Amino acid sequence: MKVQPRTLSGFMELLPREQAIMEEMMSVLRETYASYGFAPLDTPVIEASEVLLAKAGGETEKQIYRFSKGDSDLSLRFDLTVPLAKYVALHYGSLAFPFRRYQIGKVYRGERAQRGRFREFYQADIDIIGDGKLDIANEAEIPAIIYQTFSRLGLQKFQIRVNNRKILNGFYSMMGLSEQSGDIMRTVDKLEKIGPEKVSGILTGELEVSQDAADEILKFIAIKGSNGQVLEALEQYRGRDALFDTGLEELGTVVKYLSAFGVPEEYFTVDLTIARGLDYYTGTVYETAMLDHPEIGSVCSGGRYDNLAEYYTNKILPGVGISIGLTRLFYVLNEQNMLNVENSSASADVLALPMTADLSPAIALCAQMRRDGVRVQLYTEQKKFNAKMNYADKLGIPYVVFLGEDEINAGLISCKDMASGEQTKLDYGQTLSRIQAGLAQKRGGTVIREIK
Amino acid sequence: MKVQPRTLSGFMELLPREQAIMEEMMSVLRETYASYGFAPLDTPVIEASEVLLAKAGGETEKQIYRFSKGDSDLSLRFDLTVPLAKYVALHYGSLAFPFRRYQIGKVYRGERAQRGRFREFYQADIDIIGDGKLDIANEAEIPAIIYQTFSRLGLQKFQIRVNNRKILNGFYSMMGLSEQSGDIMRTVDKLEKIGPEKVSGILTGELEVSQDAADEILKFIAIKGSNGQVLEALEQYRGRDALFDTGLEELGTVVKYLSAFGVPEEYFTVDLTIARGLDYYTGTVYETAMLDHPEIGSVCSGGRYDNLAEYYTNKILPGVGISIGLTRLFYVLNEQNMLNVENSSASADVLALPMTADLSPAIALCAQMRRDGVRVQLYTEQKKFNAKMNYADKLGIPYVVFLGEDEINAGLISCKDMASGEQTKLDYGQTLSRIQAGLAQKRGGTVIREIK
Repeated sequence: MKVQPRTLSGFMELLPREQAIMEEMMSVLRETYASYGFAPLDTPVIEASEVLLAKAGGETEKQIYRFSKGDSDLSLRFDLTVPLAKYVALHYGSLAFPFRRYQIGKVYRGERAQRGRFREFYQADIDIIGDGKLDIANEAEIPAIIYQTFSRLGLQKFQIRVNNRKILNGFYSMMGLSEQSGDIMRTVDKLEKIGPEKVSGILTGELEVSQDAADEILKFIAIKGSNGQVLEALEQYRGRDALFDTGLEELGTVVKYLSAFGVPEEYFTVDLTIARGLDYYTGTVYETAMLDHPEIGSVCSGGRYDNLAEYYTNKILPGVGISIGLTRLFYVLNEQNMLNVENSSASADVLALPMTADLSPAIALCAQMRRDGVRVQLYTEQKKFNAKMNYADKLGIPYVVFLGEDEINAGLISCKDMASGEQTKLDYGQTLSRIQAGLAQKRGGTVIREIK
Repeated sequence: MKVQPRTLSGFMELLPREQAIMEEMMSVLRETYASYGFAPLDTPVIEASEVLLAKAGGETEKQIYRFSKGDSDLSLRFDLTVPLAKYVALHYGSLAFPFRRYQIGKVYRGERAQRGRFREFYQADIDIIGDGKLDIANEAEIPAIIYQTFSRLGLQKFQIRVNNRKILNGFYSMMGLSEQSGDIMRTVDKLEKIGPEKVSGILTGELEVSQDAADEILKFIAIKGSNGQVLEALEQYRGRDALFDTGLEELGTVVKYLSAFGVPEEYFTVDLTIARGLDYYTGTVYETAMLDHPEIGSVCSGGRYDNLAEYYTNKILPGVGISIGLTRLFYVLNEQNMLNVENSSASADVLALPMTADLSPAIALCAQMRRDGVRVQLYTEQKKFNAKMNYADKLGIPYVVFLGEDEINAGLISCKDMASGEQTKLDYGQTLSRIQAGLAQKRGGTVIREIK
């Protein structure tokens, strides 16, 4: 009796060429994050439930994979932020602050399975944690890193949307609506989805905000224009609330440094509707939209928070961070046919076919090519010639080299370019140059294809 | 009330500089495996228990992390081989064979926690799966990959030990001991630990082997010498058992090609005591010993098997593979002080300190350095100068650059080499050259330090 092989619903399992692209994406993220001085971090997938759920509640708790092993009450991590908080509290004495870390890892949420929703998915997070305080420049650097990351991946049409929670909280304080501000912001956050009229209806209905105040709120969040224009429009509120004024200063600083950080203005915008659902954020907040795919929602979000690890320690640990939902991003890009399969998905650059009984010359050739930085698969199966070429073709391997008696005696190598069909018989150096030139051209592209 | 932050016992959680070394090790493995045409693979950590435990039993089953979520009976993977078998059976039609994949991933075993034993640990596996058959050359290539991998990591004193199960099974068949051969091999496998007398005692005791046969077995497994000598000694048994003869042919082929594959003879040896505990292996088997640390046991093991996925499919899928217990290897190397902390553990190459109120010139400098391939952290916290230098020191960042009014006006950059203390004030190009030269020297080393 055979067991039917299957992969659980809600768990992404890619074919080799798709996986190669996913790896390439991760590699771009790692390199970009590292270029800004972020250290890689890895924490366990399993934590004590008591530790992992110190803060959680409601929806999150229901989705947790929680179980017992022996006497232990264990849970799988549902994000990378809680494990980071635990890590920083636990290893506080061994860390240097600001502590910059990136983590790319799997997290688990037992959501209802549906298309494009995953129960196991990668998050790619960066955070900068200060000890006691953290300079505002860090908040301006984050969108620069988002911009670099998506540009290197090959995205062309995206926009980083920036706001500051202090401006929002300050504004609601001016209006005498501080107590309802959380509910109001959650409602306003739906503006793009449900439109201004429905937002106004919820505000004056459920939330019992006066019509005047609702109008003021809608007017406020309707402030639009260039970043300069938005900042200018916000000036009219200055001097009425200290928190608001601080937020306006911070937003001004972030916008000012963003151009110094090399982010073109078309790639970022001040957007007063961005609040982020979580109560967690206290300053700058970020969302990132793919302009041709608004239905996807934000592909990279985050913000500034005042206290990372309050559930574990009395130390005040402010920070700023962002998260990319990598599995979902990959899924959407794949659906949209935006992944550059030709570029980097082959498992080898060269397939080497020995045509003699003694494999030694072919083995030596492969070793030499690897020393020269070429990925070579030695193919020794007893198959028909056509089957071997089909194999190279199916794997997307761009070059096939043959080594028969003739070639060995003449000190030459036959080499076929699988894309053009062109076959050459050259010495090692010439063959290598041809292959390297072809590979350089192929690798010139990015992992994501988007035309501006 | 605070929750005490903690990490579960048996779960490795590294500090940033240790983690950087672990990442470097993984990166070496990925690059080496890729250079031989292995494709990266990623499978879920959670599988249906029915699928994961199709074959398991006994000890393994007791160690599994198994739990329910809704109606589903789920388990965490305990190795990367069973998920590979499922993957190949499930995606058979989409794969090209031989299918070469590598996977570096976490696996879970609820073993009794003790020093150096982990419940969550990384395995780094490569396998080559054939469809119906698989050429013997693949079995010779595997030790070449092991040799490359450990050499690139920086290990100097290791030995790959090779045997062939057909030789062992054939030998026991000659002796009329086929039925007990599994038990006998498990006993013989303990030779290094318990010595020949105790092995003989178990053979003639529990296993009821005659004294003559036990002597023959001990004589057989005592065959030692150069690979040529061992193969020569085995010739005396040729012609008495077909399976033995096949095994001898295979072993001869593997040894012959190993030198073509560039593995120096001092790094591999034919060792007739190697059987591998699992009944799973059917041909060539491998173990890898660190010569100065025999107590660690094999750091890379595997072998040839005839049928990867028999629990899931009727297809015959022979293969050959090896596995490195990466978490344990890291732990041991760290304990032995063999990790090259100076080499690659800093989170940045340069710490940039702006000395003016306007950060723009420093930000622009950082951006330029990143374009030139240098990892730069911009440091903007309001701290005393000494605190900033201590920060660079604690993170192991090798260079600090300063940009004050003087430097900006003169178009120069002050740059301190943290190791030598030497400080220069040069233009951008000269500063970059100095930093790049220093980094190239530091990066010349390997991640593991072992002196031959």
